[in-house]
Amino acid sequence: MQAQAAQYVGNKSFEVVEGRCEAPAAGEVRLKVGYVGICGTDMHIYHGVMDQRVQPPQVVGHEMSGVVDAVGEGVEGYSAGDRVVVRPLDFCGDCPACNEGHSHVCHNLKFMGIDSVGAFQSFWNVKARTLHKLPENVSLKQGALIEPLAVACHDISRARLKAGEKAVILGGGPIGQLVAQVALGIGAEVMVSEPSPERRAFAEQTGALAVNPLEQDLTAAVEDWTQGKGADVVFEVSGVQPAIDAMTEIAAVRGRICMVAIHSQKPQLDLFKFFWRELELVGARVYEAQDFEQAIDMVAKGKIDLVPFISKVAQLNDIGSAFASMDGNPSGMKALVACGAED
Amino acid sequence: MQAQAAQYVGNKSFEVVEGRCEAPAAGEVRLKVGYVGICGTDMHIYHGVMDQRVQPPQVVGHEMSGVVDAVGEGVEGYSAGDRVVVRPLDFCGDCPACNEGHSHVCHNLKFMGIDSVGAFQSFWNVKARTLHKLPENVSLKQGALIEPLAVACHDISRARLKAGEKAVILGGGPIGQLVAQVALGIGAEVMVSEPSPERRAFAEQTGALAVNPLEQDLTAAVEDWTQGKGADVVFEVSGVQPAIDAMTEIAAVRGRICMVAIHSQKPQLDLFKFFWRELELVGARVYEAQDFEQAIDMVAKGKIDLVPFISKVAQLNDIGSAFASMDGNPSGMKALVACGAED
Repeated sequence: MQAQAAQYVGNKSFEVVEGRCEAPAAGEVRLKVGYVGICGTDMHIYHGVMDQRVQPPQVVGHEMSGVVDAVGEGVEGYSAGDRVVVRPLDFCGDCPACNEGHSHVCHNLKFMGIDSVGAFQSFWNVKARTLHKLPENVSLKQGALIEPLAVACHDISRARLKAGEKAVILGGGPIGQLVAQVALGIGAEVMVSEPSPERRAFAEQTGALAVNPLEQDLTAAVEDWTQGKGADVVFEVSGVQPAIDAMTEIAAVRGRICMVAIHSQKPQLDLFKFFWRELELVGARVYEAQDFEQAIDMVAKGKIDLVPFISKVAQLNDIGSAFASMDGNPSGMKALVACGAED
Repeated sequence: MQAQAAQYVGNKSFEVVEGRCEAPAAGEVRLKVGYVGICGTDMHIYHGVMDQRVQPPQVVGHEMSGVVDAVGEGVEGYSAGDRVVVRPLDFCGDCPACNEGHSHVCHNLKFMGIDSVGAFQSFWNVKARTLHKLPENVSLKQGALIEPLAVACHDISRARLKAGEKAVILGGGPIGQLVAQVALGIGAEVMVSEPSPERRAFAEQTGALAVNPLEQDLTAAVEDWTQGKGADVVFEVSGVQPAIDAMTEIAAVRGRICMVAIHSQKPQLDLFKFFWRELELVGARVYEAQDFEQAIDMVAKGKIDLVPFISKVAQLNDIGSAFASMDGNPSGMKALVACGAED
């Protein structure tokens, strides 16, 4: 097979060109790419709003699985044939955040597949320190969803959600639904607030309660569900002002609100409620190594089934159809691009 | 001496009337009131903005010290002559917050001296469960400041401020300065951001750095002070939008922002920064029993000197002068009203 690479060239378009297959540098491995998922950020790139950051033509893509194909000098613990996923963070190792052990929020963080070349290609050379091994019973297709599942694990960890607690998730897109799965997987109860009927159905079919906040009184629903206490944890995964208004209404005394969504505007927030009910707001960004380990472990142990999330699989030379299937489609949870390696 | 009581009668006015001296009910003690401080909330009452809640004429006041004068049936551990302060929270004991041990944010909390009769009088009957004993070396005058100092201890505790960390306090009024004192007392470093020169001088004289955010670039000052890291903890004690803008700018990665101020409007908040730097916002309301114990302990051990905070002492029948001394006066940190009991 000839190596291929799908370059984003701007304006919702990709060009599939001849790919590279280079020897890995010291400390790096060459991966034969298996499957690459399409992230919300990839959709933003597709729509052209990140053209300054990605500088097309560029190979993007960062939610991936693959097989080690060659190992560079000094790499230990990996050999050809290992099935792996990549934690696509390139940190500086020398800023105040890195120095305190928070390299995932490095002051100079480069995100692989956005700030540098990504995974929509046959081969991808990456630093060995970014790898996590996949156990035998986790397929490469599921493996492509480990990265967004690690996001969800990180959100749960930041919110300190515990078994037996009740969590409300504002927004039932792919990340919101993955947060729901991790929450259920650790023994919490989950209510998803989501206007789209398809996404509410997905939440209900995968074990959560679902509410339409445009037709039902969400605050009253949470009040009922929690016997007047309010939600122990709220995950804001929608990015809209009505959710910002709701999150302070539905949180219990000392409730934790986890800010997952990216709010590029500055919304108005009811800070009085933070005082009055001693609420807590925690920001969560990407993931740490342990979140990848937890994500892999939960899938390997059968606590989370990622298969229902896979709404489409397209071949690399048909990458455009995968992006199109996600565009404005509430049923599209996760489209994968098959780049060559198979289980 | 005849018992007196100062009733707030509306419109910045008090009327001193004959006070009550009643036998304490079961579970209660009668206190001979020593000194009562004027809180920011008392100033709001004075200005008439809480007339619906306090329903004048009412005896208000809740920052107090006193001496046990008589003990009701069933009260153990207290006897006449004990020098005490009151934790003025009347909780229901049977709501979700109380059931989880957070009675200070009880869903049905009544604040003594606001929602019920207060301490600006010669005798005050209170539940024994509200009392904390004062050691011999803490004067009744200092004792009147234990309640606001407990607020500051609670803020520090909610923000998990530790020795060696750097904290920025936005707003150098009485509570901001007390937060500064507790922070310094536990071994943290402190910068106070405050436009008033009198309050900046107070901060500097009591061990903190001070910045005028209207004339200096606060973000640059914090950047310099922390070698580019940002503040470990930010206390928002000002209640104004520019401080809300500043707090997300100056906090370090994983910085904790403690919401002490009461924002009755909904300000705009940079939620993107919460995501990007994994910031944390924690609301803090009043105090718990351990905050009173910590406050008393820090004063008893000489870690905090409350005397510089006392800007005026007026007799009960001259209570109006105490309130007037605090009105729009940035030098007025804490005016006390002497109600009878002396050391």
